[in-house]
Amino acid sequence: MLILGLDPSLTCTGWGVIRSEGSRISHIANGEVKTDPKAPIAERLHHLHDAIRAVIGAHAPDRAAAEEVFANKNPQTTLKLAQARGAVLAACAAGGLSVNEHAARLVKKSVVGTGGAEKTQIQAMLKVLLPGAQIAGADAADALAVAIADAHLSYSPTAR
Amino acid sequence: MLILGLDPSLTCTGWGVIRSEGSRISHIANGEVKTDPKAPIAERLHHLHDAIRAVIGAHAPDRAAAEEVFANKNPQTTLKLAQARGAVLAACAAGGLSVNEHAARLVKKSVVGTGGAEKTQIQAMLKVLLPGAQIAGADAADALAVAIADAHLSYSPTAR
Repeated sequence: MLILGLDPSLTCTGWGVIRSEGSRISHIANGEVKTDPKAPIAERLHHLHDAIRAVIGAHAPDRAAAEEVFANKNPQTTLKLAQARGAVLAACAAGGLSVNEHAARLVKKSVVGTGGAEKTQIQAMLKVLLPGAQIAGADAADALAVAIADAHLSYSPTAR
Repeated sequence: MLILGLDPSLTCTGWGVIRSEGSRISHIANGEVKTDPKAPIAERLHHLHDAIRAVIGAHAPDRAAAEEVFANKNPQTTLKLAQARGAVLAACAAGGLSVNEHAARLVKKSVVGTGGAEKTQIQAMLKVLLPGAQIAGADAADALAVAIADAHLSYSPTAR
């Protein structure tokens, strides 16, 4: 079972594909899709949609996973994030994937063991869980974390 | 010049195509894209994306226009609206269209003459501006209004 984890944002959308076999996981690929901040928003959204469709085409994951979206304190940030997420989730469904959504706290708990983990703890744990993986950046790391959480929560749903 | 006006929302996205020649406008087509409230959000977003691409394919507009997005008081409403908008704007760029964004106040002012117009005033004015047009519903009416505003603001930018 291949799982595509996603961390959508307008500036830089992280993605990561892992293989999940029972309780075992392994790294397949990860990356980040950056958009030109000077381009019109419709073009940036189209670029995200296209790039995620290409990732799905290249790696043929069985399903996708993303963190549940939440409203940021800054409404402009929320609007940008949610529009990016709309383009990315549409691309998943266009590629035939369902998308599991997990609370950020559950993702952290699945990867590090505590719901209050820092980003640096998550990145350190990824080195242990996915040895040898070259991680493209912080957004790709977050995407891999949500893929791992999805694998874990599917294998042992009582972890919820 | 054909202009596609859009009123994106997850439940029902309105669209309307008008022809603009100098100061003259005429109705081409309008409609509403509804999504199944019981379907997963990724599928609903994909449906919006696909349907708007189909509208673009059928009517070959030269550009698109939408109201500027704003943060609703209810964060959940904002998140749904913005995700739908992300899928719809991505579809415009996929279809080669640029998207002009206009403040809601300017749209009302362009169509009715006052920035504080009610929805019912806008719908009444559409019957005058686009005689004979069968309007699919309130969301299609809003989409036609933003297309008209876009035509008007392009023809006489001092109207801003």
